[in-house]
Amino acid sequence: MSKPKVFEKPTGVKDYLPEAAAQLRSIEWKVMQCMERWGYREIITPTLEYYDTVGVASSTEDKKLFKLLDRNGTTLVMRSDMTAPIARVVASLLKEQAFPLRLSYHANVFRAFEAEAGRDAEFFQSGVELVGDASSESDAEVIALAVACLQAAGVKEFKIALGHVGFLNGLFQETLTGRRDDQTLLKECLLNRDYVGYREAIKKLGLSPELEQELEGILRLRGGEEICSQARKVTQDPLAQQSIEHLCEIWDVLKAYGVSEQVLIDLTMIGDFSYYTGMTFEGYAADLGFPVCSGGRYDNLLSQFGRPAPATGFALKTNRILEVTGKGRAETQDRVLVVYTPGKRAEALKHASELRGREGSATAVETRLIGPEGLAAERQADETVTVRGAVYRELVEFAD
Amino acid sequence: MSKPKVFEKPTGVKDYLPEAAAQLRSIEWKVMQCMERWGYREIITPTLEYYDTVGVASSTEDKKLFKLLDRNGTTLVMRSDMTAPIARVVASLLKEQAFPLRLSYHANVFRAFEAEAGRDAEFFQSGVELVGDASSESDAEVIALAVACLQAAGVKEFKIALGHVGFLNGLFQETLTGRRDDQTLLKECLLNRDYVGYREAIKKLGLSPELEQELEGILRLRGGEEICSQARKVTQDPLAQQSIEHLCEIWDVLKAYGVSEQVLIDLTMIGDFSYYTGMTFEGYAADLGFPVCSGGRYDNLLSQFGRPAPATGFALKTNRILEVTGKGRAETQDRVLVVYTPGKRAEALKHASELRGREGSATAVETRLIGPEGLAAERQADETVTVRGAVYRELVEFAD
Repeated sequence: MSKPKVFEKPTGVKDYLPEAAAQLRSIEWKVMQCMERWGYREIITPTLEYYDTVGVASSTEDKKLFKLLDRNGTTLVMRSDMTAPIARVVASLLKEQAFPLRLSYHANVFRAFEAEAGRDAEFFQSGVELVGDASSESDAEVIALAVACLQAAGVKEFKIALGHVGFLNGLFQETLTGRRDDQTLLKECLLNRDYVGYREAIKKLGLSPELEQELEGILRLRGGEEICSQARKVTQDPLAQQSIEHLCEIWDVLKAYGVSEQVLIDLTMIGDFSYYTGMTFEGYAADLGFPVCSGGRYDNLLSQFGRPAPATGFALKTNRILEVTGKGRAETQDRVLVVYTPGKRAEALKHASELRGREGSATAVETRLIGPEGLAAERQADETVTVRGAVYRELVEFAD
Repeated sequence: MSKPKVFEKPTGVKDYLPEAAAQLRSIEWKVMQCMERWGYREIITPTLEYYDTVGVASSTEDKKLFKLLDRNGTTLVMRSDMTAPIARVVASLLKEQAFPLRLSYHANVFRAFEAEAGRDAEFFQSGVELVGDASSESDAEVIALAVACLQAAGVKEFKIALGHVGFLNGLFQETLTGRRDDQTLLKECLLNRDYVGYREAIKKLGLSPELEQELEGILRLRGGEEICSQARKVTQDPLAQQSIEHLCEIWDVLKAYGVSEQVLIDLTMIGDFSYYTGMTFEGYAADLGFPVCSGGRYDNLLSQFGRPAPATGFALKTNRILEVTGKGRAETQDRVLVVYTPGKRAEALKHASELRGREGSATAVETRLIGPEGLAAERQADETVTVRGAVYRELVEFAD
């Protein structure tokens, strides 16, 4: 517990220097406009919430919540997602507004990870919640919107993996009736995408060869539309069957949206199974090992805030999207430097004001740069000018 | 310490519903563009910082910091301003970049107030820091930029009050040499704008009538350019004289910027005197009892992070600006509702996609609204359509 050095910052948090900050803003802005055009309206909720309300209702494990005490000794949490706070608002300030409600957010959220895990303790999410509609149309709408947002953000290659918690719940209920621990073990394997572990676990369950085959077979249930018909044959469990029907309906609507090519059905994908109640999905960008987007249906959350309602939504991880889209992008800002000697001040400031107004150029003014050592400006091959390490499109001098 | 109700949130924090959120975003966006055009580039720093680095260096009183422990037992703070974090970045990640540096931020900051104080525990700031320039030109630049930002944000009537901590420090040093407690008492009165208390305090100091008059006289040092010449006559203290010279120089540059009409010299204004080292300023909007903007020169902060440098800057309180500009503004968003029966899905979704793309309209789609009870749409006198309480510019129906 040594004292941190003055320039250090806590584990898992980041500084975004101008270029990265501009790219993150640009992603957020494009996504925001996209969500707006789909009829979603932004709400802003506080960073701090009561542990007993939003903290308990959130899908984040308790030990991953940042907690602190307020002056009355009540435990507060730094929000770990935006879904629970929005549920609180829907059930309170917006309780007179008729469903469906389309809401969006652009916010930083917090998770207290082990230092050695190397994961972000603060990250940026842009997302939507569609509250009060249980239909497959609404599930498809948020998936289609996720596709539109990823495209708007400049993510070129990506796939949405689409699953349904009801399918696995039903299948395990049928094959491993009453064996909760075994069910949980298998779900954990799938959640971690540990297919080897899943196969090994099945072998140890002492099942009939038919049942073993059935459970192993779901690892092959990943693909396009054909998976719907294949999955129908795997199980007779009513919940699983109903889930597949729902996925097939969603697929039909996705086709109408023209986005089914970006979607893969993946019945091994399970999401957070204590939280989601229906379809779940994750977006994967090429070359990135972690999802840039995740979402699903959560029909039980709103009742915790006293206004029971079905709901579906997703969150984009905008700082991860930055890692995909930001690579190698050159600085393109239109920057101008106006330098002047004191006697030319009025003239120089007037010119700078015109550049800012008329052309919208990013225009800095300097007088101290013109010293005995001169400006040290270097004109580059591409016509830009470098002054003390900073690059400008144009340099304007006003000297006596 | 009763358990909070599910819909409650902590003291001093707010939810911004869609209309207010859109207005806050719009203010932030306009201010952001203004700062960009003046050559300032945004940086983003984490919400959590080490107490021993940024917490200690910040201008916020210790008891007003939100503190928590990380997993290693090190004390963290939720940032209470952006100036100290930016100083940290300037002295570390940006240490190779030549001065002057122009940086901006748009962030939420946190202060732990007494519950009964009724003040915001979380609020929104947009600001700039101009680092590495000690000139009056740079002080005037940030004041002129503050004026431009307030105008861009739509604040119609406002005044910037401009003072200098050196003037009062010098004057008190001269009149109350060595009497630190008395100096502090008088400064506290001025900080709280308690002029009655200030006059009473002077009377109790046992000063000569001339000195009493001199100290009382500064209450009249509020006005335009004429204050500079008046102030010169009040005191012979070198620090005070030098401060007035600096203010006069700033005033000249403000005239060149064409913003001196928005500025009042107020030598009774003192700002946070433990933090600021030169000129300080506050922006007041008509009809609002608290400043919408505050700033000043802080030449001692950067040395705490190991890269000594002069610096000047300001922060706009964007949620306060919202209170000035947002009043009574009508919802003007261009919203369209497309409703369809399942058989017309493809057609309806195509039309919605066109509306979003071509016209940029905020377009929601619904199928469940067309039930046996119909749409319950009401056309209003202004040609808008109300459906279940929500207002749309247009309603498009696709029914079998």
